[in-house]
Amino acid sequence: MSKATNADHHDLAADDALRASIRQAMLDVRARTPLAQSFTNFVTINLVANAQLAAGGTAAMSYLPDDVIDIAAMCGATYINVGTLLPFYKDALGEITAALHEAGHRWVLDPVAAGLGATRTAILEAMRDVPPSLVRANASEIIALDALWGLSDGSDVGGGPAGVESTDDVDSALAAAKRVARHLRAHGGDGLGAVAVSGEVDLVTDGERVFRLPGGDMMMTKITGAGCALGGVAATYLCVADPLVAALAASLLFDRAGERAAAESHGPGSFQTEFLDALWAIDADTVSTSTILEAKR
Amino acid sequence: MSKATNADHHDLAADDALRASIRQAMLDVRARTPLAQSFTNFVTINLVANAQLAAGGTAAMSYLPDDVIDIAAMCGATYINVGTLLPFYKDALGEITAALHEAGHRWVLDPVAAGLGATRTAILEAMRDVPPSLVRANASEIIALDALWGLSDGSDVGGGPAGVESTDDVDSALAAAKRVARHLRAHGGDGLGAVAVSGEVDLVTDGERVFRLPGGDMMMTKITGAGCALGGVAATYLCVADPLVAALAASLLFDRAGERAAAESHGPGSFQTEFLDALWAIDADTVSTSTILEAKR
Amino acid sequence: MSKATNADHHDLAADDALRASIRQAMLDVRARTPLAQSFTNFVTINLVANAQLAAGGTAAMSYLPDDVIDIAAMCGATYINVGTLLPFYKDALGEITAALHEAGHRWVLDPVAAGLGATRTAILEAMRDVPPSLVRANASEIIALDALWGLSDGSDVGGGPAGVESTDDVDSALAAAKRVARHLRAHGGDGLGAVAVSGEVDLVTDGERVFRLPGGDMMMTKITGAGCALGGVAATYLCVADPLVAALAASLLFDRAGERAAAESHGPGSFQTEFLDALWAIDADTVSTSTILEAKR
Repeated sequence: MSKATNADHHDLAADDALRASIRQAMLDVRARTPLAQSFTNFVTINLVANAQLAAGGTAAMSYLPDDVIDIAAMCGATYINVGTLLPFYKDALGEITAALHEAGHRWVLDPVAAGLGATRTAILEAMRDVPPSLVRANASEIIALDALWGLSDGSDVGGGPAGVESTDDVDSALAAAKRVARHLRAHGGDGLGAVAVSGEVDLVTDGERVFRLPGGDMMMTKITGAGCALGGVAATYLCVADPLVAALAASLLFDRAGERAAAESHGPGSFQTEFLDALWAIDADTVSTSTILEAKR
Repeated sequence: MSKATNADHHDLAADDALRASIRQAMLDVRARTPLAQSFTNFVTINLVANAQLAAGGTAAMSYLPDDVIDIAAMCGATYINVGTLLPFYKDALGEITAALHEAGHRWVLDPVAAGLGATRTAILEAMRDVPPSLVRANASEIIALDALWGLSDGSDVGGGPAGVESTDDVDSALAAAKRVARHLRAHGGDGLGAVAVSGEVDLVTDGERVFRLPGGDMMMTKITGAGCALGGVAATYLCVADPLVAALAASLLFDRAGERAAAESHGPGSFQTEFLDALWAIDADTVSTSTILEAKR
Repeated sequence: MSKATNADHHDLAADDALRASIRQAMLDVRARTPLAQSFTNFVTINLVANAQLAAGGTAAMSYLPDDVIDIAAMCGATYINVGTLLPFYKDALGEITAALHEAGHRWVLDPVAAGLGATRTAILEAMRDVPPSLVRANASEIIALDALWGLSDGSDVGGGPAGVESTDDVDSALAAAKRVARHLRAHGGDGLGAVAVSGEVDLVTDGERVFRLPGGDMMMTKITGAGCALGGVAATYLCVADPLVAALAASLLFDRAGERAAAESHGPGSFQTEFLDALWAIDADTVSTSTILEAKR
């Protein structure tokens, strides 16, 4: 945490209701193997599916609106990632997100490379009025999405140019993340919404409460798709839990799995193997008793 | 086997000609490294290619009709999987399957998610009159394909809703599998055809004889693409063997590899690594001497 | 080396400037983590990205011209691979390669399956006048590209039919590789260009000097995408070095990594894991002191 200090935070109490909800979400996923579908980039689509399976869910990937809308009717949540766009995605994602919004179907947005490319900008702008329940991104992307959606009054926009690789630290996106989360809550049907900002210390907020999750491992940045897989697993948890709980559970599971995998591996190839094994093995108690630093308000 | 009992079956004799053919198919693939091409989904395309290579073949993946038809002229068989459809696939697959049929080129169909999505339904319906030599699917998909092709008289359609994850057990698809296999044989140029239904116990039939293959491991359902890879490897065997032999050889190899990988791994990440190693290492004798339960007629 | 003999070659001296440049390229990539973007096939896109990360770079994959051209403005080099073509690629790649040429942006071409499919032929022909800085291919593909670009006078065209799997040995492509390299140098803005031909012994040339790199391991042909990943990592090195140095550094790193991975693995699954770990672990001294056989002129 480059700006926030520990003195600004306290670790959530062992009996905080949020810890019980995180634990229950993990147990429910493993008991029910919920289906979360994905519309995601071609680079990491395999890892997203395998991470969802390893976490206890099931996976289905589609691009045609008739597929996605049919499957949404039978699954708990959808993950949408705007990497590796194809020409028809602009129309398809417009149709899909409108249908999901109309149906009150929960979904996770991963605004990969927000700010780059005219097509991506048009796609993300159109999501403003039919927003997801949860946004998972790095700091640069959250700052770019906040700007694309016109949520800021312009007084605090900061950070470097947006890009595929985040050039901003998580704290620089704090104000943007809170605004985006409040926007999700204001425009979603159920008044719920959360934002997860991935970085050296993950930040999760519902627009009011702000949580920082220390841990994880730098090797998570040396394989492609740890962030995408986190978004996919957040959708898996969203099948059984509210957005804030889903964001926290997925982020904590990934941090613990990253640490375990780093200890067991000796390079990015073995890290990925061990990471999937760790997603499979780590239990609900380990995740729900993690350090969760809540910012004082 | 939830419905069939062992008393209804006998293990194929050690000197049954089918065992010799399975053994020969494995030896031929490893001696000739045949090229089987694929038109397959983006989720598991890498695993399909790697499984074909591990089993001893070579791989080429394409989507444009001019690519697929050019390559079909120089390869032994083609694998077509209808997952992750794109808008142009409906026309492309119509053109491709007509050309393959015209050329008498053998191919394997993997009707992923049959019954879901209007585009997929149209694609699968159009394949009725230019069918593959081999269908590899789960029980729900076979039941859906049988219905889409109008092969049933309606007296025995059962099972739950079709979906990406099979909700039916293999035996519930027995009648549908036999009808589909007989349809393939009636409409293929060479009078040959087979159906492989993947499940806890795999079922393989040419429409007359019915085989059940016990074994495998539940971890095969905890990685994405074991079924797709099986379809791809069946196409590899189809380069050197008839559909029934190809279906049996591929299914048995996968069952033995799944068992070995489960014993050597401690989660889905290491399972996938060990599974590819096992496809590479398991020999023709191990596969061809497997338990093959034939249903009494 | 089936035709060339060792007597025709000498190992580069320990103090040859090229060895220092190779070493520096590796150190620079690990110090600067340069971004190389890719427009590449769906089969091996994940391995390309992971190989670039393991070698020390970062990765971004795109297909829309507005994405690719935006990202080219902020990255050091681009990798373009013509596998798994989609219908819109012909127009998109025409627009992209023209823009890269106009901007003087360096890129690597991987002409996968050159000679197969009318669309691919049209795409590759159009690249003749806006060529890359570096071509990475197998022998059959180099021979096909040389023919498509009309660089030969026809007196020495040889080898079997082009295809996804090379049917020609590297030496059969020597004349074609030199012609292609000279074409790149003549039409690139900076007068630089190189060709890397992958095979049992890799061949690298800038059109004048010819280098053969013994080593590697046959297991590199038993996973899909070692060649694609090599092209991607060559683009990573092209961010910090000239085409000839980038081609040599990437090829040597892959040979050393292949050898190490083969020694540590027991099948293609564990080979791929160990291969990524080896790309990560092998140091600049190991690579830059490799055997580099230069042909006598």
